Amino acid sequence: MKILVLGGDGYLGWPTAMYFSRLGHDVMAVDNFVKRRIEIEEGIEPLEPLLTLHRRIALWEATTGHKIRLAVGDLLNHRMVYDLLEHFTPDAIIHYAEQPSAPYSMESRDKAVFTQHNNVIGTLNLLFAMKRHCPEAHLIKLGTMGEYGTPNIDIEEGYITITHNGRVDTLPFPKQPGSFYHLSKVHDSANILFACRTWGLRATDLNQGVVYGIETDETKLKPGLHTAFHYDAVFGTVLNRFCVQAVAGAPLTVYGSGGQTRGFLNIRDTIQCVDLATQNPADIGECRVYNQLTEVFSVLELTKLVEVAGKKLGIEVRIDHIANPRVEKEEHYYNPKHTKLIDLGLKPHLLSDVLVEQMIGHIQTVRDQINLSTFKPTIKWREK
Amino acid sequence: MKILVLGGDGYLGWPTAMYFSRLGHDVMAVDNFVKRRIEIEEGIEPLEPLLTLHRRIALWEATTGHKIRLAVGDLLNHRMVYDLLEHFTPDAIIHYAEQPSAPYSMESRDKAVFTQHNNVIGTLNLLFAMKRHCPEAHLIKLGTMGEYGTPNIDIEEGYITITHNGRVDTLPFPKQPGSFYHLSKVHDSANILFACRTWGLRATDLNQGVVYGIETDETKLKPGLHTAFHYDAVFGTVLNRFCVQAVAGAPLTVYGSGGQTRGFLNIRDTIQCVDLATQNPADIGECRVYNQLTEVFSVLELTKLVEVAGKKLGIEVRIDHIANPRVEKEEHYYNPKHTKLIDLGLKPHLLSDVLVEQMIGHIQTVRDQINLSTFKPTIKWREK
Repeated sequence: MKILVLGGDGYLGWPTAMYFSRLGHDVMAVDNFVKRRIEIEEGIEPLEPLLTLHRRIALWEATTGHKIRLAVGDLLNHRMVYDLLEHFTPDAIIHYAEQPSAPYSMESRDKAVFTQHNNVIGTLNLLFAMKRHCPEAHLIKLGTMGEYGTPNIDIEEGYITITHNGRVDTLPFPKQPGSFYHLSKVHDSANILFACRTWGLRATDLNQGVVYGIETDETKLKPGLHTAFHYDAVFGTVLNRFCVQAVAGAPLTVYGSGGQTRGFLNIRDTIQCVDLATQNPADIGECRVYNQLTEVFSVLELTKLVEVAGKKLGIEVRIDHIANPRVEKEEHYYNPKHTKLIDLGLKPHLLSDVLVEQMIGHIQTVRDQINLSTFKPTIKWREK
Repeated sequence: MKILVLGGDGYLGWPTAMYFSRLGHDVMAVDNFVKRRIEIEEGIEPLEPLLTLHRRIALWEATTGHKIRLAVGDLLNHRMVYDLLEHFTPDAIIHYAEQPSAPYSMESRDKAVFTQHNNVIGTLNLLFAMKRHCPEAHLIKLGTMGEYGTPNIDIEEGYITITHNGRVDTLPFPKQPGSFYHLSKVHDSANILFACRTWGLRATDLNQGVVYGIETDETKLKPGLHTAFHYDAVFGTVLNRFCVQAVAGAPLTVYGSGGQTRGFLNIRDTIQCVDLATQNPADIGECRVYNQLTEVFSVLELTKLVEVAGKKLGIEVRIDHIANPRVEKEEHYYNPKHTKLIDLGLKPHLLSDVLVEQMIGHIQTVRDQINLSTFKPTIKWREK
């Protein structure tokens, strides 16, 4: 298969590109490196320095004999997107190429506008280019469980059957996103659903939970093939940050009470889910939505896991309940359905203290590279 | 009150500005005249030539003694928006300033991107400027009933209480918009709801039906104060187009079977609804949604009204069922609730053959200005 990986430089994009390449697919990675620029703006870095994507791709070929093609370009440049799809004619398009940070999107007008413009218009350009050059390609779009917010009812996978005043319809599940970033994903989902229904494109919209983990089978093949691992308050997801804080001897920064409950999954399962979606494409005209998570935890439950794993390694884990920079419910019902990927064959790597121990062990080997000043959130949802 | 009318050059914006000015409010009209540019691009014109907004404002003052302030500027220019709100400090912001045509948004990638960028980013800039300079101002935002699409259940006003697996929540009503224009309004609604919930802004999101009509009390005060009346396939709403087609002796262009059913209201009631919203502002932090329509008709029912009115005036009305350029259901359930504006005191001007007769009579006086070549839709939702 010809597989386009948009956002191929990123935390998930790079392991995805290697995974499909190793299986023998013809993979093209695309990136505009905007996340690298944001890192510089925000004064943050991944835990371990990254080689340029060009050098990692060369290292990948030297290590495995597999080529990954590279296109440097921006989805906002529609001519680049049209050219790419016309000449590469992908079978599957795996789309991670969006500004991925909720806090960044809440920092200022500039950054909110950048996020919605970059994500929504980039994806619009992609949809128009698909219509023109590869209308039968399967779009696999990374969305987020954060699109749903925390409703007081079970969260279905994309659509809900509603009985109202004696009549019934199945409609898009109502969304309550919690940042301009999450809103951009909601806008994308609506645009993609429309393109499928109106033009007969096919898409899988993956509402992904919070990803944790450092390694995949491919990143481990050779030093230098690792992926961008963030632990800061801008890009770092909560469990990744907690593990680094534990190693650094810093308190785990819990926002408010810590009752916030979310869906989680291992980075290995992100790859597995994307692979399952690719192997089992949506039908022509279908916009399929999967909730991509394997387990549900509250923030406080995660601190307990880190505490237990830390103890085994002789680390005493402390917790700091800091004022919540976000506007979100700290105690709430949360029951997202997530059976569709299991039905396709997903075998989850569940979170355990052993896994956390492994993460902490890995982080200990690069402990001196931790930048303690990036743990604390500086971006507040409300200015006051 | 200080009232800002964004989109003050338009079909609805101009009569709104005059209405509030006549009541003695301090009104500032803002426009970037992008719709005038689109008219030139598309080769279309309003039925009667319009004076520049500058000249209409001067004529208004000469006629009534009331001043309307004018700011020429684009909501995409955030510095202009911040300056405007800082110095004018409006109590109410009536926001019509969006690209309003569904067909235009479906014409090409360029125009889809223009529509979503213009509408969504313009409104984002406005929200950030409000947060900075007038967080207690009341935003009255024109949305569209087209945000909901045509679900098989009753359409509530913005929110629906859902019982699901034994639990209950009240959530945003699921949306199924039918064009990139309608999608832009859905994105706006989500951004505005978020800004109210997170920052404590206050807004009324008016999901407006299809507007018809030529005159308000203010447009009739003096020749030259009339508003932009479109009857073409790009900007012309269905009943306005049918009346002009009847006068021109051209067949009424019905898209497909004509079973499409929508909410409608008189332009006078648009003004009345906006006035009621202004007089009864939303609470701080509240994003209130009203369905702004007074009656429901199918397209075929409208043709009957035009037929009856035409007969009285000696016009024989013909109907042409043309291939539907849109992707939409032609037979469907449609029951939108619209009691909240009635509860605030709305007294609807209901559609009757007398009203249609008046419209046709008015159009007959400028019959020689009708451009027959702009009736037929040239923009198709699907290219094939």
